Amino acid sequence: MQSFNPPIRTLMGPGPSDVHPRILSAMARPTIGHLDPAFVGMMDEVKSLLQYAFQTQNQMTMPVSAPGSAGMETCFANLVEPGDKVIVCINGVFGMRMKENVERTGGVCVEVHDAWGTAVSPEKVEAALQANPDAKIVAFVHAETSTGACSDVKAICDIAHQHNCLTIVDAVTSLGGVELRVDDWGVDAIYSGTQKCLSCTPGLSPVSFNERALEKVRNRKTKVQSWFLDLNLVMGYWGQGVKRAYHHTAPINALYALHESLVMLKEEGLENSWARHAAMHEKLKAGLEEMGIKFVVDEAVRLPQLNSVWIPEGVDDAAVRSELLNTYNLEIGAGLGDFAGKVWRIGLMGFSAKESNVLFCLSALRKVLGK
Amino acid sequence: MQSFNPPIRTLMGPGPSDVHPRILSAMARPTIGHLDPAFVGMMDEVKSLLQYAFQTQNQMTMPVSAPGSAGMETCFANLVEPGDKVIVCINGVFGMRMKENVERTGGVCVEVHDAWGTAVSPEKVEAALQANPDAKIVAFVHAETSTGACSDVKAICDIAHQHNCLTIVDAVTSLGGVELRVDDWGVDAIYSGTQKCLSCTPGLSPVSFNERALEKVRNRKTKVQSWFLDLNLVMGYWGQGVKRAYHHTAPINALYALHESLVMLKEEGLENSWARHAAMHEKLKAGLEEMGIKFVVDEAVRLPQLNSVWIPEGVDDAAVRSELLNTYNLEIGAGLGDFAGKVWRIGLMGFSAKESNVLFCLSALRKVLGK
Repeated sequence: MQSFNPPIRTLMGPGPSDVHPRILSAMARPTIGHLDPAFVGMMDEVKSLLQYAFQTQNQMTMPVSAPGSAGMETCFANLVEPGDKVIVCINGVFGMRMKENVERTGGVCVEVHDAWGTAVSPEKVEAALQANPDAKIVAFVHAETSTGACSDVKAICDIAHQHNCLTIVDAVTSLGGVELRVDDWGVDAIYSGTQKCLSCTPGLSPVSFNERALEKVRNRKTKVQSWFLDLNLVMGYWGQGVKRAYHHTAPINALYALHESLVMLKEEGLENSWARHAAMHEKLKAGLEEMGIKFVVDEAVRLPQLNSVWIPEGVDDAAVRSELLNTYNLEIGAGLGDFAGKVWRIGLMGFSAKESNVLFCLSALRKVLGK
Repeated sequence: MQSFNPPIRTLMGPGPSDVHPRILSAMARPTIGHLDPAFVGMMDEVKSLLQYAFQTQNQMTMPVSAPGSAGMETCFANLVEPGDKVIVCINGVFGMRMKENVERTGGVCVEVHDAWGTAVSPEKVEAALQANPDAKIVAFVHAETSTGACSDVKAICDIAHQHNCLTIVDAVTSLGGVELRVDDWGVDAIYSGTQKCLSCTPGLSPVSFNERALEKVRNRKTKVQSWFLDLNLVMGYWGQGVKRAYHHTAPINALYALHESLVMLKEEGLENSWARHAAMHEKLKAGLEEMGIKFVVDEAVRLPQLNSVWIPEGVDDAAVRSELLNTYNLEIGAGLGDFAGKVWRIGLMGFSAKESNVLFCLSALRKVLGK
């Protein structure tokens, strides 16, 4: 068996997005120990850069050593105790995954459904909270990667707090790509991924918890069911002002990559990154509409970085995606769950959100669709 | 904030070990999608190479997308059901961590203790099984990273099977460094890490489950408490002969690195790698004994890749390790748990297990100790 040399793709699916060469190069720097003072210094920078990306002062802001799904599980495993009632807003695949998490942590799930491709309805959340005054947590997805719909984080957090609930927010696809203000909007616990609008390699999940959330973790009556994800233990390694205690071996080189991607975000400026994603979406939208391709999500709640479009009638989904991949080395995303076979998801995330990608994608699609 | 350029260390602690430039370079190859046919082909190679490394035909052999601690949790979360009695052999830090895992998965832990620095006693395991005929699982560590003791996997598995128990084996530090034969020795479930004798970057945990173990997972009465680690779901992505279903986003570039490290192991030959670790240990041992430094573990059960030695009397532990790191860029390991301040752990793992490292380490130690 031989070394693996991947083909050179352009990644315009739902993630991973194109990874900037600076980030790949950072990842290949020599490995050092996970308790090395030089590494610990870098960890502090990663935390501070993540606070910037999340727009938070939360001390408990750090990357979980595993992909976004483990970040989700970190939030639910630490915050949900057996018997806790959790309002879960479901408007796509990732809301459904939240429900799985609640049930597996022994919580009681109250589902609030909205149609795929629409945003979470604050009114329905309000109604669910009135019907369930014993609810402890409201969980929802900011940017639904399966549909491309953006929900109103601030409005839902406000309602949750009026009912004395904590909030858990999925920001896997939103972080770095659209406005997100953890402190101003009152998010209590949030998780994201590295492989979307940070255009880093996949494998880590940035999370942030405020004091109100940590208070619940500290006062648990039962141990967190996951040793690996137990914040009480993880903080011994990632905590500030204390001697770092060994918990697990951190994924050193993946953290080099995350550090570099966050330095790049800081260099560009968060607001500039949001604006770039919006501008590239406008260009892609104009080209797609010219081809008669229609968007799934209403403009008012549409994510610029995740463009869900209806597959034109009579077009063979798999054949088109295969041709794009095999002939043009271009990856766009298939539909997920209810949208499988009906929708394409065209990503404009991080380093992929640039005009050359937009032009290339539009030309390639035109060719393959014979437009 | 600027790009992070790590110092160039020589890693002779308990892991991570020195990562070969071929592996770092593989890690920096362009990211592709986690459902890309080219990537799926590479995944199949990784599985097959891991079967070779573990010496197993188990179909269910793959890397968990997180560090070794998550591999441990994968074994316990899938195999232990609430109320299951588990015999846990404790002769160091990682046996204690197993106990934590059993308790957090709702199992009942029966502890079998052996002194730190000694191997697990098969006789004590036999006695514990006779006293607990309702036990379902025996869990123990092959190569205790906290002490450097090697336990007899085959003997303990034989006893466990005579009592109709499954076995869970920690092979984090043993895989690639000492003889390990999953099928011949009758191991039912096993987990390892990438950052030890595979000299890959940290962040993944190779695991393997045989049919007997999978049978228990399939027949669970309760759902696996972790969605992220649920083998029933993970297999939809890593399984053979089926269309890969999205579960979580795989850490693409980390898997490039693991692939390369396994290709290198295959090129060298597993037995040759074991022999190299043993030969380097002999050279290190000769030099250390010349300096009057004594080993913690009896020669009969001593791991070649993890050399625990008593810190000579009157020597300042932290000062020596700091001087080695700051003056010579050489990392050796501190003692862990009961051994903190008393023991150094000198690793000879993977790419670090070479004569130039041995000579360098001995010279540097001699300088710093004034010998």
